[in-house]
Amino acid sequence: MSRNILILPGDGIGPEITAEAVKILEAARDGGLDVALTEGKVGGAGYDAAGHPLPPATLDAAKAADAILLGAVGGPKWDKIEDISLRPERGLLGLRKELELFANLRPAILYPQLAEASSLKPEVVSGLDIMIVRELTGGIYFGQPRGIETRDGQRVGYNTYVYSESEIERIGRTAFELAQKRNKKLCSVDKANVLEVTMLWREVMERIAADYPDVELTHMYVDNAAMQLVRAPKQFDVMVTGNMFGDILSDEASMLTGSIGMLPSASLNADGKGMYEPCHGSAPDIAGQGIANPLATILSVAMMLRYTFNETAWAERIEKAVGVVLDEGLRTADIAYAGTRKVSTSEMGDAVLAAF
Amino acid sequence: MSRNILILPGDGIGPEITAEAVKILEAARDGGLDVALTEGKVGGAGYDAAGHPLPPATLDAAKAADAILLGAVGGPKWDKIEDISLRPERGLLGLRKELELFANLRPAILYPQLAEASSLKPEVVSGLDIMIVRELTGGIYFGQPRGIETRDGQRVGYNTYVYSESEIERIGRTAFELAQKRNKKLCSVDKANVLEVTMLWREVMERIAADYPDVELTHMYVDNAAMQLVRAPKQFDVMVTGNMFGDILSDEASMLTGSIGMLPSASLNADGKGMYEPCHGSAPDIAGQGIANPLATILSVAMMLRYTFNETAWAERIEKAVGVVLDEGLRTADIAYAGTRKVSTSEMGDAVLAAF
Ligand SMILES: CC(C)[C@H](C(=O)O)[C@@H](O)C(=O)O
Ligand SMILES: CC(C)[C@H](C(=O)O)[C@@H](O)C(=O)O
Repeated sequence: MSRNILILPGDGIGPEITAEAVKILEAARDGGLDVALTEGKVGGAGYDAAGHPLPPATLDAAKAADAILLGAVGGPKWDKIEDISLRPERGLLGLRKELELFANLRPAILYPQLAEASSLKPEVVSGLDIMIVRELTGGIYFGQPRGIETRDGQRVGYNTYVYSESEIERIGRTAFELAQKRNKKLCSVDKANVLEVTMLWREVMERIAADYPDVELTHMYVDNAAMQLVRAPKQFDVMVTGNMFGDILSDEASMLTGSIGMLPSASLNADGKGMYEPCHGSAPDIAGQGIANPLATILSVAMMLRYTFNETAWAERIEKAVGVVLDEGLRTADIAYAGTRKVSTSEMGDAVLAAF
Repeated sequence: MSRNILILPGDGIGPEITAEAVKILEAARDGGLDVALTEGKVGGAGYDAAGHPLPPATLDAAKAADAILLGAVGGPKWDKIEDISLRPERGLLGLRKELELFANLRPAILYPQLAEASSLKPEVVSGLDIMIVRELTGGIYFGQPRGIETRDGQRVGYNTYVYSESEIERIGRTAFELAQKRNKKLCSVDKANVLEVTMLWREVMERIAADYPDVELTHMYVDNAAMQLVRAPKQFDVMVTGNMFGDILSDEASMLTGSIGMLPSASLNADGKGMYEPCHGSAPDIAGQGIANPLATILSVAMMLRYTFNETAWAERIEKAVGVVLDEGLRTADIAYAGTRKVSTSEMGDAVLAAF
């Protein structure tokens, strides 16, 4: 029985970049990789087609799939939807929650071929290779109560930042295990000097550390982490943090490389089933122009083959093909500079395919 | 009647750096500036002396003072205090709350003499001059309910991120007014695609924008803001955001300059009464060695003279003296590099005094 991959192009540049990744998946399938592809609608596309950012048919297909490839969601077209539960982002958040994809892995890697693209000095970022592990189904993103209501004659908005011990423990173990396979350094990021919820976070990380004696655990306040990522990012190996801090720090970290258009991500459940997507967003400003960078999405396919399907050889073939294309000097607009050859989204996809 | 300044050295390097700032204040007083100085204990020093990070005597003195100069609080010595309400940080948070210092102004300025200290490429940061306006007495720092409790047999930690319309409006107006005096660009940072509290934030900013037609208001999600600060920080003039996001982004922004040891901050109430402190922390690792950089604290005095006392001429004299010393090539360890003269904390203070 084939392994089922659900393709969710989403909004903005999503359809353009997933189309290139699908080319690679189809080539792998024709080359013997046992996968079947289906497509669905999510985000603004889901809202337009079925009145909901996560239509029931999409959710069913996602539950039935072995892995999901997602483009990106959101855009100004849907910003005026009054009911926040119908906004494109809710489609993404709904998938994460319904499939219990609690572990979000976001690498920040500097590709040597793209060293110039970084806004940081070369010596600060050369060789950068950080893995940020972000909790994805809890924290303030999902905490109850939440809302906007009138109190004492004026409106008040509120959200709840909440974690239970078991939620913290499960993401902590994922991060420790990843650190064991890397450089055995784990930095847990919190704001334990102010927030009780992160005091508990720190305590749980300390407790489970005993089970991973080969990993060095450190703690850092989130404000300091935001600074240290700019000052000396290579001090980090694996970082683990909650949903909100992870959102902020992983975006900051990915931008250190200067090429967020290159960075894939994985969101995994307890069984390794996962949703894979580029770290970047739907970039509505350049949608439809055929200039978006498809490499993060193509590399997300490689991550999928590695993490969910254990197809390391196929994953490496994709990654190698991307390396070849970069070596050849091909660049989409976001990573182009003098002396390189600027190509379109589909030219980039075709080039990877040719090198595959 | 003299204007009363309360000096709160605090912990770690706090006493060393405030001592240098006091030298300048005393020189100004001897030169005719009408100020009277008193000293108090806060943070770990307050806990050690009086069993509380904000002893009643300190709070009374702070309420009576016209302005406060604070060094820094916190350190590993007090990290083991079980009762979070007795930790050093609570002294600082208590002062902010009790004095209603809701407007925290944190400039991120690149001193041309220190351009090399930045980890970013010179063209990305040269001429950088951002003002971050952080709400300081609300948000998740102070929201109720909060705590750690047992639910369904396991412990759960929780905090509440809450803002009322009037809290948002008051910090918004401060930011708009500042933008009017600068380059008339205000970027409000939120996470309105996920958090209801920041949907309200965005709505209020939109509403009051009508009163400042000369200021261009934009909105940015916090994850994107964390990226944009790394990618192209000079796109910003004034940024306004809540307590937690402001904590993270202002630290990130200050590190872009490579010299957080240079950056002052002001925390103001509705009448312009304020507490002034360096952006950096108590740096317990280098405390007592006489190597900390006193310039952020000295520049905090200049900010005090400008914002609370309207003594622009005196403020400029201090800033000019700091410029002279930097031009002379004097550097504390944090900003020293080949070709500059490394000096101690007190040598730096004395040099500023000599140039004053
Ligand atoms: C689109 C948005 C809801 C989402 C998030 O905040 O998690 C995005 O920023 C991300 O990081 O995947
Ligand atoms: C010490 C700590 C409580 C404080 C804060 O988080 O506000 C500090 O980081 C700051 O930014 O002034």
